[in-house]
Amino acid sequence: MTELADPVLAPIPVDLPQVERRAVLPRGFAAGGAAIGIKRSGRPDLALVAATGGPAAAAAVFTPNRFAAAPVRLSQAHLAAGEPGGQGRYGHARAIVATSGSANAATGAAGDADQAAVAEAVATALGSPATEVLTLSTGVIGTRLPVQVVSSGIATLTPALTTGDAGLEAAARALMTTDSRVKLATTTVVIPDPGDFSVGVATVSGIAKGVGMIHPRMATMLAVLLTDASVPPSLLSTMLRGATVRTWDQLTVDGDTSTNDTVFLLASGASGTAPVDPGTAEAAALAAAVEAVARDLARQQAADGEGATTLITCQVSGAIDDPEARAVARSVVASSLVKAAVHGRDPNWGRIAAAAGNAHLAGAAVLEAGGLAPAVAAERADAPATIDPDRLRIAIAGHLVFDGAAGGPQPLDVEAVRASMAAEECLVRLDLGLGEGTGEAFGCDLSEAYVVENSEYTT
Amino acid sequence: MTELADPVLAPIPVDLPQVERRAVLPRGFAAGGAAIGIKRSGRPDLALVAATGGPAAAAAVFTPNRFAAAPVRLSQAHLAAGEPGGQGRYGHARAIVATSGSANAATGAAGDADQAAVAEAVATALGSPATEVLTLSTGVIGTRLPVQVVSSGIATLTPALTTGDAGLEAAARALMTTDSRVKLATTTVVIPDPGDFSVGVATVSGIAKGVGMIHPRMATMLAVLLTDASVPPSLLSTMLRGATVRTWDQLTVDGDTSTNDTVFLLASGASGTAPVDPGTAEAAALAAAVEAVARDLARQQAADGEGATTLITCQVSGAIDDPEARAVARSVVASSLVKAAVHGRDPNWGRIAAAAGNAHLAGAAVLEAGGLAPAVAAERADAPATIDPDRLRIAIAGHLVFDGAAGGPQPLDVEAVRASMAAEECLVRLDLGLGEGTGEAFGCDLSEAYVVENSEYTT
Repeated sequence: MTELADPVLAPIPVDLPQVERRAVLPRGFAAGGAAIGIKRSGRPDLALVAATGGPAAAAAVFTPNRFAAAPVRLSQAHLAAGEPGGQGRYGHARAIVATSGSANAATGAAGDADQAAVAEAVATALGSPATEVLTLSTGVIGTRLPVQVVSSGIATLTPALTTGDAGLEAAARALMTTDSRVKLATTTVVIPDPGDFSVGVATVSGIAKGVGMIHPRMATMLAVLLTDASVPPSLLSTMLRGATVRTWDQLTVDGDTSTNDTVFLLASGASGTAPVDPGTAEAAALAAAVEAVARDLARQQAADGEGATTLITCQVSGAIDDPEARAVARSVVASSLVKAAVHGRDPNWGRIAAAAGNAHLAGAAVLEAGGLAPAVAAERADAPATIDPDRLRIAIAGHLVFDGAAGGPQPLDVEAVRASMAAEECLVRLDLGLGEGTGEAFGCDLSEAYVVENSEYTT
Repeated sequence: MTELADPVLAPIPVDLPQVERRAVLPRGFAAGGAAIGIKRSGRPDLALVAATGGPAAAAAVFTPNRFAAAPVRLSQAHLAAGEPGGQGRYGHARAIVATSGSANAATGAAGDADQAAVAEAVATALGSPATEVLTLSTGVIGTRLPVQVVSSGIATLTPALTTGDAGLEAAARALMTTDSRVKLATTTVVIPDPGDFSVGVATVSGIAKGVGMIHPRMATMLAVLLTDASVPPSLLSTMLRGATVRTWDQLTVDGDTSTNDTVFLLASGASGTAPVDPGTAEAAALAAAVEAVARDLARQQAADGEGATTLITCQVSGAIDDPEARAVARSVVASSLVKAAVHGRDPNWGRIAAAAGNAHLAGAAVLEAGGLAPAVAAERADAPATIDPDRLRIAIAGHLVFDGAAGGPQPLDVEAVRASMAAEECLVRLDLGLGEGTGEAFGCDLSEAYVVENSEYTT
């Protein structure tokens, strides 16, 4: 009974709203998807989401890859055009258009022109300025978008967009590449109106695609979050960045950060709920709803990693602060040896300990540079130790396997641990015994199927 | 003919002495190996190298893993005991003892006591202080060394050590775990004696083991370099660190930095060549010889990576400086997607470009923190761009596949490129077009066999 009470044996409680994995299109948006022939397979490859009541508030987080693809550069430029400071982080958007099958990355000036033509086609179809169109692409690097095909597809799809939930699901399906499952999440948030004491409900929904070339620091492939709450763009950006640090930045499938990764968050304001101001309880509630949807989508992406059979969740407590806990969690789920061991249901805690001991090498400071001043990042890079082996405790799937303060390796019923690991999700819990910091990260096992899938993929 | 002259199609010339892959034991050392029963397989698992003429000058580079194993901590302490400043980087050593089969990592205070007993056994057998014994271990994390077995093995092996080359080869064989090939390299360096105008020749030889849990920043598994040159320990340390930055720090098999990685460099002075002083041409020549042996051993380790069928060498020119070139090269060979593509002989330059674009995310600055002041590291972490897609050029196995200044993707005879990639070594050449910096990194393809090998490995 004592053992059951040991917190390292249980998941860290996540204080976020409940999420459902279904398509719920928030008010103020229309959406749809179609198969227009970019993919040779004939599967859906064009997704479109439009704000029906005029431009929505918009926020974005983009890949840090230096080889950012044309859709990323165009979206950044469109947001920057209307943003104080022009960093391309937030602004207003009328529509998001996504193509799958060709990433439009490493295509040079021609690729930029192609992407601009795609945005222009959406703008024409909707009667809005092209700068209000945001773009996403995913697929093979280095191939040109078939602009004529995409433009006529847009002209056909736009009038067919629906404000029903099916439109959002169709858009989610059209994002998919090697995904085996469509990725959807939705939740609601209650927003009181201080003016008339009424209570409104806003919806936050998201769609996403995985599933290879996924690694921390906004290396999340594509996701679109929508809400009908009324939120100014700068606050929306703060919410999105806050959620990303704890969700998509903690997601790794294979350590490769894509050229195209993008998350958009659009707010239509069509719920009729009161405007959400910074620093209020409503802003906190909405931020939690955004994070809940983001976290669930990130977990769906990890679980559907290429070749994956198991979602690996690493939760770390007892770190000196939350960023350190997140860095350790990331290092564990990113380890090829840990991933292979989980695939083999091998409770190889030595690899987990070694991966935790490497957290300071994996650019932990760099990874969170967005949230750290350079001086702090440099100091953290040279921090003498984030792990004390004598205080470290590790549990795999609810079994205590290592306790640094109690002689290290613990006696194990290996078959029992293996049985617990043979589940859809394998929880790896670490307690560093150093402080109050907590964090988590999401990954998947490394299987032969990942190798087969990625060695046969054709340029 | 123009194409043949394009430097991006050819390897970057490496200005280092030629190396032979055979066992040559430098003068002043005796060595040997034995199977004493640590490994269940009955293969050799105890290696011993001793300086025959008293303590040799010694230098070391150890794993940066926070979970450094008992043999690492003990060796550091022994070197630190006699070192000004006490950092455990150089000093004197009478012997190196290596055990394979158990890593003696994450074994706590008991593991430290075990490792001290092993060093003590060597000290007793040689009649030297225990602080002159350096230790190496490799194998499963979390299992205790069988101290009695190791101690009696040492007592038996020590009198059987030989000054012949066979002793060094036996030691190299006893280092092996999942290695499929023994790793040996040797070269010579001419050292004139300014006193009497005579010319002496010193030998530099090395042995090493791979082959999993290998990643940059001194994550090299085990290597022992020996020379009979006469070199003060601090200069030896400078040479070893310089070589490591360009060789073992540029080696990755699976992105996991082990708890036990260690390189030792011992100099007996028994060649009778003149003492080598810092800043001389002789010091430069000896450093080049050390680097040549280190580079060749690192390449052997990469080629023999777990499940590997192909050595991937990435060479980068045109970077703003050498560290940037090395960071880009590392990022390319570390990419799971690039590794899987090479395994499938897929000339997927898009993945190479994307991996190059991620170099700044992989803790590039952190990785070379040893050579960079924190302020420089922080600045580099925030550097705006190390890659300009419009200047980047990529060649795979001698075929130009991407030229940013010439429209990007180049027309390819895919079958011809695939045929060129089907070799023991696949050269990936990048030219960044930004400056004069060059660098290289070594890795291997990612195969189904890696996954099988590492998911079946038992704790």
